[in-house]
Amino acid sequence: MNAPAHPEHLLPQVAQRDVPQALIDALRQRFAERCSTALVVREQHGRDESSFAAPPPAAVVFAESTADVSAVVALASEYRAPVIPFGVGSSLEGHLLAVQGGISIDLGRMNKVLSINAEDLTVTVQPGVTRKQLNDEIKSTGLFFPIDPGADASIGGMSATRASGTNAVRYGTMRENVLALEVVTASGEVIRTGTRARKSAAGYDLTRLMVGSEGTLGVITEITLRIYPLPEAVTAAVCSFPSIEAAVRTTIQVIQIGIPIARVELIDVNSVRMVNRYAKLGLREEPMLLMEFHGSPNGVKEQAEAVQEIASDHGGKAFEWASTPEERTRLWTARHNAYFAAIQSRPGCRAISTDTCVPISRLADCLLDSVAEADASGIPYFLVGHVGDGNFHFGYLLDPDLPQERVTAEKLNHQLVTRALALGGTCSGEHGIGLHKMDFLVSEAGDGAVEIMRTIKRALDPHNIMNPGKVFTL
Amino acid sequence: MNAPAHPEHLLPQVAQRDVPQALIDALRQRFAERCSTALVVREQHGRDESSFAAPPPAAVVFAESTADVSAVVALASEYRAPVIPFGVGSSLEGHLLAVQGGISIDLGRMNKVLSINAEDLTVTVQPGVTRKQLNDEIKSTGLFFPIDPGADASIGGMSATRASGTNAVRYGTMRENVLALEVVTASGEVIRTGTRARKSAAGYDLTRLMVGSEGTLGVITEITLRIYPLPEAVTAAVCSFPSIEAAVRTTIQVIQIGIPIARVELIDVNSVRMVNRYAKLGLREEPMLLMEFHGSPNGVKEQAEAVQEIASDHGGKAFEWASTPEERTRLWTARHNAYFAAIQSRPGCRAISTDTCVPISRLADCLLDSVAEADASGIPYFLVGHVGDGNFHFGYLLDPDLPQERVTAEKLNHQLVTRALALGGTCSGEHGIGLHKMDFLVSEAGDGAVEIMRTIKRALDPHNIMNPGKVFTL
Repeated sequence: MNAPAHPEHLLPQVAQRDVPQALIDALRQRFAERCSTALVVREQHGRDESSFAAPPPAAVVFAESTADVSAVVALASEYRAPVIPFGVGSSLEGHLLAVQGGISIDLGRMNKVLSINAEDLTVTVQPGVTRKQLNDEIKSTGLFFPIDPGADASIGGMSATRASGTNAVRYGTMRENVLALEVVTASGEVIRTGTRARKSAAGYDLTRLMVGSEGTLGVITEITLRIYPLPEAVTAAVCSFPSIEAAVRTTIQVIQIGIPIARVELIDVNSVRMVNRYAKLGLREEPMLLMEFHGSPNGVKEQAEAVQEIASDHGGKAFEWASTPEERTRLWTARHNAYFAAIQSRPGCRAISTDTCVPISRLADCLLDSVAEADASGIPYFLVGHVGDGNFHFGYLLDPDLPQERVTAEKLNHQLVTRALALGGTCSGEHGIGLHKMDFLVSEAGDGAVEIMRTIKRALDPHNIMNPGKVFTL
Repeated sequence: MNAPAHPEHLLPQVAQRDVPQALIDALRQRFAERCSTALVVREQHGRDESSFAAPPPAAVVFAESTADVSAVVALASEYRAPVIPFGVGSSLEGHLLAVQGGISIDLGRMNKVLSINAEDLTVTVQPGVTRKQLNDEIKSTGLFFPIDPGADASIGGMSATRASGTNAVRYGTMRENVLALEVVTASGEVIRTGTRARKSAAGYDLTRLMVGSEGTLGVITEITLRIYPLPEAVTAAVCSFPSIEAAVRTTIQVIQIGIPIARVELIDVNSVRMVNRYAKLGLREEPMLLMEFHGSPNGVKEQAEAVQEIASDHGGKAFEWASTPEERTRLWTARHNAYFAAIQSRPGCRAISTDTCVPISRLADCLLDSVAEADASGIPYFLVGHVGDGNFHFGYLLDPDLPQERVTAEKLNHQLVTRALALGGTCSGEHGIGLHKMDFLVSEAGDGAVEIMRTIKRALDPHNIMNPGKVFTL
């Protein structure tokens, strides 16, 4: 595998497709001021948290119902124009960019929690509901939705990218927690996949085909999720280690003996330094694990004691415990602020993030070699990881005025992904493929499997209008 | 929805397709005595545990490698002949019947555990490995594979039908526990889906598209599974209840408050009577819950005490505990023998099984109305259920010489499925669609979603050779 092309060089290869004025006129007629062609609106919908750039979409439609979405897609299908679903714009791999032009469908106004079935531990929401909003709205039921990708992403976007985050080690990812969907297909038809039953062996698993399809097979207009009773007891702990390796070996052992830890996050010494400077936390400037335990009071105590013993065996020290919500928030501030602290540490920089995930036994090998490479590169970086799942992120902090840094960072990412794949891992633990990892997907899955994906795409979206140019080339 | 056609009436509507002698000759040349056309072998591969009948396949090939499977499928593709993957023949909905003729591929000789990655809690097996064999082979590692559908099914078959069983309430189903697959596609090409990483956001979820596709999209030739540390402590308990309703309401409450119970099985009074007669167990002849708790010694004790309190609130009595493996085996004998005890209770009968699954809050409604209907029908039956998931099975015991009983049983099943769907449930919790539930799948998923399934099938299997005539009509 050769080093991937510099991303800016990838984008111009894709031709912008024609968006006929007749389509814009038809959308305006149907949606009036809810169809915008103002440049500022289009530009806002033509980017995400990635560092890529492409011309903005030709128009943005603010959908308020499934019927609205269906109408947009049906018109787009008639005129063969791309449609790009937009949640809150927090995706990281260029998913939202109108690389082939087209219409952005903003789903932010479809933000109702439609039903809370507390007795069944399920909830049904519109795609524009964000995860924090959802947790606010269900708090009074004593239930919560655990998937936490960091950003206050929309549930629709989290479903479309198969998101996960800090709680996945215990509660799974969107793959495990989406029970059912309503989807507008490429013809504008509305289908339902799955039911509220916890399990089913009825036909093809269209729910999980749509989850992670990044808008390329349909627009998700309704999501039924599993939710969970708030644990009786929650304890968080932070522990410093003499080395990243010691922290990682602790994590591996915790997972291998089956301790049902809810969260276990690695924060490298660079991140600790940046966060200390940003938020004056006064943390020991050593690699850290941030952990959280959920369960009964006794169960939490047992888990925490077992983990502390394992950590001590690996030189872990300065255990700090937090049982009250306020203390926990203080500890988790380090993790949640890592990104912003890092950005501030190099004024004017852009962060680009890696996202590999490997089998847990290979985590130390994968991570330590990549740390050595990153250190040698001279590029400022930070490292955080959902290490209980074998998933971690380097954040390379690039000066946009120094193109060579981008080349170096892409090379580091390429080496990391190559290493992760060789160790039986994946090029994306949770961010998705988008524009950036199409070559990596082929390396990981093989030509044959990607051709099966293309075949499905062509069959379900014959005019290639659903978020075209993402996941794979057609 | 009209009552479905009597299954025997369904089968003749499907035309047998031509299996050219040239294909048989080519298979014989490639496989010599591993390609059999002996009637006894063909008949053995032309049936499963369902009560359906169809002409046997034209030949059976005993595959010993992925290359063998690939060669059979490539030849079948060339001659446009159906291929039907065969594990151990334990499926329940007619999945294995050669309703359109064709070649059965027996995967029973592909029965090697290929690698055990104890550190990663994963194992990779060939499709003919059975679940009991797998657990025997990994026992020394202190790990186990929890999915237990009752029968000693093959892992390939369990993957193809998205099986689950008694442990699913805690450990999930094949949907959650298959990490990666090797699949021979309809052209004979070999692809890999997924990796050994615990999570991934890399491209379409082909793994879960294949899991539950019942052999209609490809032949599964290798499976990577999640496995789990054997719990430190296991306790089983049996508890009798004054009514099914009391047992079900206990279960609902246990699930709703989030007790991580590993198994909770309902056994109705009919089953208890049959099992008492069959195995002289001397159990109280009342509805029973059989439960199992996994965890630390303290954790198991906490769980069990909490459940006992809830059960007592619902009139549960005669709690019997079992902590040693021998005592547990004795208690679980009732559950495991229910099917055989029932069959023996009416000599010469055939059991046909229902398989609905509903959101847990609707379980009592769904179940009690269906019990009333079954009681009124006069058909002997037994009722067992993985009630923690909302999944339960009526076993109707039919005299094959009394066709009217089949009609009555089908009517009962139809009423049950209609009720389950109206309550937000599914027509199949774990047995799959096969031949028997194609109408129900349309009622459940809707024409639009089933048409998406058909579109995928047509795209990935353009000659309709992969287990044709199952899941849906084309």
